[in-house]
Amino acid sequence: MLRLHGGQSVDLSSYRTRATPAGPPDKAAGLAATARMGEHLAGLQERLWAASTAGDRRRVLLVLQGMDTSGKGGTVKHVTRPLNPSGCRIRAFRAPTPEERKHPFLWRIRRALPEAGEIGVFDRSHYEDVLIARVRDLAPHREIAHRYGEINRFEQSLADDGFTIVKCFLHISYEEQRRRLLARLDNPAKHWKFNVGDIDDRDLWPAYQKAYEIALERCSTPQAPWYLIPADRKWYRNWAISKLLLEHLEALDPQYPKADFDMEESRRRLLAQAPDPGARL
Amino acid sequence: MLRLHGGQSVDLSSYRTRATPAGPPDKAAGLAATARMGEHLAGLQERLWAASTAGDRRRVLLVLQGMDTSGKGGTVKHVTRPLNPSGCRIRAFRAPTPEERKHPFLWRIRRALPEAGEIGVFDRSHYEDVLIARVRDLAPHREIAHRYGEINRFEQSLADDGFTIVKCFLHISYEEQRRRLLARLDNPAKHWKFNVGDIDDRDLWPAYQKAYEIALERCSTPQAPWYLIPADRKWYRNWAISKLLLEHLEALDPQYPKADFDMEESRRRLLAQAPDPGARL
Repeated sequence: MLRLHGGQSVDLSSYRTRATPAGPPDKAAGLAATARMGEHLAGLQERLWAASTAGDRRRVLLVLQGMDTSGKGGTVKHVTRPLNPSGCRIRAFRAPTPEERKHPFLWRIRRALPEAGEIGVFDRSHYEDVLIARVRDLAPHREIAHRYGEINRFEQSLADDGFTIVKCFLHISYEEQRRRLLARLDNPAKHWKFNVGDIDDRDLWPAYQKAYEIALERCSTPQAPWYLIPADRKWYRNWAISKLLLEHLEALDPQYPKADFDMEESRRRLLAQAPDPGARL
Repeated sequence: MLRLHGGQSVDLSSYRTRATPAGPPDKAAGLAATARMGEHLAGLQERLWAASTAGDRRRVLLVLQGMDTSGKGGTVKHVTRPLNPSGCRIRAFRAPTPEERKHPFLWRIRRALPEAGEIGVFDRSHYEDVLIARVRDLAPHREIAHRYGEINRFEQSLADDGFTIVKCFLHISYEEQRRRLLARLDNPAKHWKFNVGDIDDRDLWPAYQKAYEIALERCSTPQAPWYLIPADRKWYRNWAISKLLLEHLEALDPQYPKADFDMEESRRRLLAQAPDPGARL
């Protein structure tokens, strides 16, 4: 994974989608390394949650973006597997509903944010409003141009409120997308995921890549950086994003709240209570 | 587990909390049986989700209630483990926030409901408003009396909209709660879960049991029955609730939507696209 810096010009074609930067040497090692991170992730998640019960406002928001078939859904499934689902707030954003369309584009995003102590995961996000919206002219040019700044201010306000924001662009190649779409055709249990429009959309591939480049350039900020994840290899993608999540949780270093009660006194009181609760009414 | 029927008078003290009705013979067999259900649950969940993409409105809502330490959080963790977290909407309800208190008691519940194709899990629920609210006089008597009917009408409206509602009361004994609270005291990583108020609350045990009996009597309806789950044995509790979820999903029998496109034509078009997307712009 590569952390992008604001203002840096991004040429997606210069990044190899099958690369495994800083990763384990091969798939077997990758799967093992990812599995090993699980317990550590679960432990840190529990501490993050525990700390929130004592007033710690911190939380994590993982944003996943990428072309169709880039593996956003698979990432959610694999990266969150070791976590306690009660502490995860996962949301997949599809085309806006009629109600959502009546509101500013960040409205539905605000309603899906993780609360203190939670790990939020967005499968697609407010970035759709500068990606598909730009490629398909879903809003006036001037408005889309304005959204990058709006997004940066929004993410800054989240960071100020205790959010750690980790944005991942899952980078696959045009050829890999073809392979994955063909694989969906070969598997009857995956036909429901197939949409003929996805084939037409491939004609817009260069326009989408350009829209991603602009978003990555304008919205990589110190408080909410973009990470570029080569994603043709699923095992690497899962390893890289688990690793990013782990590093950010380690940096937060959440702590169990200190006991604020007299343990011995509590033990005595519990043991002194009659065996039959009815006896005391 | 025992399905309760409306109008039936409920005496909780008559149910053994360490019983394992219809369950596997012992813990090892229980864990194995629960694990075996995992793949089946995941497959049905995927079909439920897939069906929703073709307009199927159905969804499942699992409601968990029980005394402190009865294992609601542990149930969420274990029962949802085999599921795809993207298709789960899990919500734990704590004491209402000031904003929530400004609204009718069902307001926050409606906002947390699963969408079509999802499996929702509530750790506590609208039943708190006839449980703790009744025991602690948090609302006028007349209002609480009115809520049972409101809840039944609400759940009926959900059923009409495609909800399958499965409500589980995790039944533990007064002694088992003592053991679990003592175990929390013994484990520094669990002190954050300990609240001295939980000891005081034990004096209200009979009042809580009574409030549960009334709720189970008045709100066991054909469209949203209550199940009584003996919960002193965690392995049985997890087995029983996984089994209930499985049976309800099997009864729904969701189907993958039929492919509504010409597969061969799609394959041909994909293969015909040039290797370099830039070539076509």
